Amino acid sequence: MKKRLIILFCFVFIAGAIGSAYAQFAEPEHAIKYRKAAMFLIAQHFGRMGAMVKEKIPYDQEVFTENAMLVETLSRLPWEAVMVPGTDTGDTTLNSAAFTQPAKFKEVSQNFETQTAKLLSAAQSGNLNSIRTQFGEVAKSCKACHSQFRTK
Amino acid sequence: MKKRLIILFCFVFIAGAIGSAYAQFAEPEHAIKYRKAAMFLIAQHFGRMGAMVKEKIPYDQEVFTENAMLVETLSRLPWEAVMVPGTDTGDTTLNSAAFTQPAKFKEVSQNFETQTAKLLSAAQSGNLNSIRTQFGEVAKSCKACHSQFRTK
Repeated sequence: MKKRLIILFCFVFIAGAIGSAYAQFAEPEHAIKYRKAAMFLIAQHFGRMGAMVKEKIPYDQEVFTENAMLVETLSRLPWEAVMVPGTDTGDTTLNSAAFTQPAKFKEVSQNFETQTAKLLSAAQSGNLNSIRTQFGEVAKSCKACHSQFRTK
Repeated sequence: MKKRLIILFCFVFIAGAIGSAYAQFAEPEHAIKYRKAAMFLIAQHFGRMGAMVKEKIPYDQEVFTENAMLVETLSRLPWEAVMVPGTDTGDTTLNSAAFTQPAKFKEVSQNFETQTAKLLSAAQSGNLNSIRTQFGEVAKSCKACHSQFRTK
């Protein structure tokens, strides 16, 4: 009986969570557009940090930290827009595996958030070695998710 | 002579500012995509606050404040991507007036930033009357810019 109650609770909780995310978007297309917008901004600001890390442009602590703050903030946005039913088709590169392996998806997306928070700390410290190392860790966390949950 | 030096300084300063913004984007299309992404996220999160202000969903201080923080952060992003030469054509609603009236454009875009910062302060205070009033001020600042610098 207890087990059934727990299962029921989990079902209601998950349905509620999905419903809540879904409710944020009037149409599935809005969820796709939303997560693509967030991802595009993340890529742009991560790229600006990359240009400094790769010494294509001079390192500027203030600018680097601004970008790290933005990426850290934006890193929390895309996920609610991923778990919207029907958004693995259409103008998207989302792999349906996100729906069949939600625990794995949550793990890799949360790791991205964790790594971007650490990059912000490194940026604030101003230690270039830490910054380079942590920039690499964020890049790895991007790839870990893309290789499993992006179609191309 | 002094006047000429001032004009020369202004020219170099403006060219530098435009060059700096332009350098952030590999192609004019990236600038358009960037500002549209930022605007779409702003509209989404402003809309979520609007749903509470208009009592379509219950007011939740934590959620409202999160949205206000996001909009305040995002409000600073689009402008560098506006002042990129050649981005008033193509897949955009930018009115060329932004290039011919840069001072006016700066004034209205900065006012939007100011009003979103005030909305964040109101959200943090938790005073619903202040929140409603300031939400209206942000909406006005959106319209003031769109009516002059957006084609549709």
